[in-house]
Amino acid sequence: MPSVFSFASPALHCLPAAMGTTLALHSPLAPTSHHFSSSFSLRNGRRLLRNVSIQSYIWTSKLQAQPGLLSDGFSLKERATSSGVAVKCAQEKAAATVSRPAFTQEEFEAFLVNLQSSICDEAATADGSGKMFGFDKWQRGADPSNGYGITRVLEGGDLLEKAAANVSIVRGSLSEARAKAMSARGRGVEAGASYFAGALSLVFHPRNPYVPTFRSDIRYFVVEGSQGWFGGGADLTPCYLFEEDARSFHAFYKSICDKYSPSLYEESKAACDAYFYIPARKEHRGTGGIFFDDLETFQKDSDQTANGGASEEPDTDAVFAFVRDVAQGFMPSYLPLANRRRTIAHGEAERQWQLLRRGRYLEFNLLYDRGVKFGLDGGRIESIMVSAPPLVAWKYDVAPEPGSREAELVKILQNPRSWT
Amino acid sequence: MPSVFSFASPALHCLPAAMGTTLALHSPLAPTSHHFSSSFSLRNGRRLLRNVSIQSYIWTSKLQAQPGLLSDGFSLKERATSSGVAVKCAQEKAAATVSRPAFTQEEFEAFLVNLQSSICDEAATADGSGKMFGFDKWQRGADPSNGYGITRVLEGGDLLEKAAANVSIVRGSLSEARAKAMSARGRGVEAGASYFAGALSLVFHPRNPYVPTFRSDIRYFVVEGSQGWFGGGADLTPCYLFEEDARSFHAFYKSICDKYSPSLYEESKAACDAYFYIPARKEHRGTGGIFFDDLETFQKDSDQTANGGASEEPDTDAVFAFVRDVAQGFMPSYLPLANRRRTIAHGEAERQWQLLRRGRYLEFNLLYDRGVKFGLDGGRIESIMVSAPPLVAWKYDVAPEPGSREAELVKILQNPRSWT
Repeated sequence: MPSVFSFASPALHCLPAAMGTTLALHSPLAPTSHHFSSSFSLRNGRRLLRNVSIQSYIWTSKLQAQPGLLSDGFSLKERATSSGVAVKCAQEKAAATVSRPAFTQEEFEAFLVNLQSSICDEAATADGSGKMFGFDKWQRGADPSNGYGITRVLEGGDLLEKAAANVSIVRGSLSEARAKAMSARGRGVEAGASYFAGALSLVFHPRNPYVPTFRSDIRYFVVEGSQGWFGGGADLTPCYLFEEDARSFHAFYKSICDKYSPSLYEESKAACDAYFYIPARKEHRGTGGIFFDDLETFQKDSDQTANGGASEEPDTDAVFAFVRDVAQGFMPSYLPLANRRRTIAHGEAERQWQLLRRGRYLEFNLLYDRGVKFGLDGGRIESIMVSAPPLVAWKYDVAPEPGSREAELVKILQNPRSWT
Repeated sequence: MPSVFSFASPALHCLPAAMGTTLALHSPLAPTSHHFSSSFSLRNGRRLLRNVSIQSYIWTSKLQAQPGLLSDGFSLKERATSSGVAVKCAQEKAAATVSRPAFTQEEFEAFLVNLQSSICDEAATADGSGKMFGFDKWQRGADPSNGYGITRVLEGGDLLEKAAANVSIVRGSLSEARAKAMSARGRGVEAGASYFAGALSLVFHPRNPYVPTFRSDIRYFVVEGSQGWFGGGADLTPCYLFEEDARSFHAFYKSICDKYSPSLYEESKAACDAYFYIPARKEHRGTGGIFFDDLETFQKDSDQTANGGASEEPDTDAVFAFVRDVAQGFMPSYLPLANRRRTIAHGEAERQWQLLRRGRYLEFNLLYDRGVKFGLDGGRIESIMVSAPPLVAWKYDVAPEPGSREAELVKILQNPRSWT
């Protein structure tokens, strides 16, 4: 019955759909061991538990998997020996015995770190300059239990003038201000409560003005005594509009959303337009994508649409499956269009326009972005400002010539369009 | 008795001291007429009213002064015909008859606009490239009575890679948020109260990395039913430290402060260091200068120190005299040191360092500056973002070489020093 799957990361996001499964082994194996135990736990996805006997998951750790150390009623039967990137396992016990929460903070953390690693490898390969992502691991303060970050940056590449992939893991007690801000958003949380926040975020600033800037992230937040929630998204910020790029990018994420809830894409698309908006400029930042926050569960209706059956499992699982799909889609959603545009010749005027548009990018980040505000509250400034473009220009009151490609872009940014 | 003074703006700030007077004619003449009446009012300064018979004031308007139309017991006796820049007048009636407030909003406004004009002329001359400051006048919304701005920018100069001198005049009703923010700062103001805010602000981004960036402003704020208050300041943001420059700059403003209050300089210097601070970087933005806010009156002690006599006049007058001295000092405090450093040769490494330091400048503006937040609330973004440097770079986690001039600067920014 068991079979082995080996796959490279570009195809990884397609696997659950192709297999018709969402059962996942979340490997706690990470590039460094001291944050993780070496024990395994195999968690259920949602809905398809009873019909699934095989599951695989990528890892890149140097640690070795230990067959037989699975918890919660699953066991690891075999481990692929080739390349160390795939495992196989069989479901041996009713999934209903799996207890909440269906995944641990440590497993989410491992997912982030592993994905960061494979994304950096893939992005450096695509860049092709020979430049690599650095690996800068830092701690939050003196106490390692407060969390850490891994900031990975490639600067001066051919495709990527600057690219950053950051993991951030925060454990702490909610400050008065944060508790208040969360309560204002409908979370009944209290100052002093312990919390966990884990995130992976990417910003790719391409060199060629015809290649759009790419930003994406996923994040998980849980406060002691309440259910956790997810956030994330992915969006494009072009300097020049290629309708085809905007359409393919949106279609990509729509197909992921549609697997989970019929309204999910429309809501996330609208939220993205609403979030990445500069009121003072009356401009949206880019051509959008998806953006979601405070995601704990999907609607009952959409659950059934997605799976056609009743659920006995916590909905957080479904949301995690969605978030995982989104995150594993980051590179496949972006690289094809980046490769399409990277060789278009441009002159100094297009470069200038790019530098000016990057100014808008930064304005949004520093004036409005909630993540930046959150990060500045005790965070590490270099890991926040790493999202800044490498070179930015501001000129006074620049207005593109009517009818120009520059004017066309601005018009779209002022009036977001449906792309699907 | 009357005599005529003609003076160029560099000397203007010295006049009250040189003359031993603070009596001032605030010309309501402005480059455009529709915001001002053509009537005059001559206001008293403080303390020296009885001994002063002569006063002069600069203007640059194309409007003609109308002799004889003075209010409040003063009259305009003569008007200089040469160049249209100086007037003379005589005190004809006891100053005690002058009613509060000792100057009007319109007069403050005229002061701002006139000073802006002379500063732009002087800065363009110093720049020497032939580039001029534009003149961009805009309204706050459809109703002209809500105020306006005059944004003046020089880009691509020889000394000044980008320089902006902005006047902003706001008339409106306090929003809930602003009233709350002000109340939190100890002002018992209520939402809906009408207010006036007038400001002149300068930002000079020099081309040569050895010339510091210069920022300065003055502002007056008054809410219906309460006394107005002043704010302002001037400070330097160098990329390379020249101790002599920091010392002469601080000494310049200390000498102005000392005329008004013995503690004024120390307080304003400390406030400047405290305000221009980036907590996330643990760095002060520059080598400081002075910064003051909520200034309504000086201490009684300092009043006597400054003038040696009792006062019958409102202290707002003294504060306005101080603010005027500060504002008229902007160019004389900066130009000499800019001229000292502008010809020092530099290479690409110094330019790169300058672009990185400009990143800090912008981070402060967008993350922390109260003026930016105030401006964004209904303001005009181009007139706020005009303070942005023309070209800025961000690199990940740059640390200057120990012992280098770059490291020397950072050390000073982390530990503000006394410069007087």
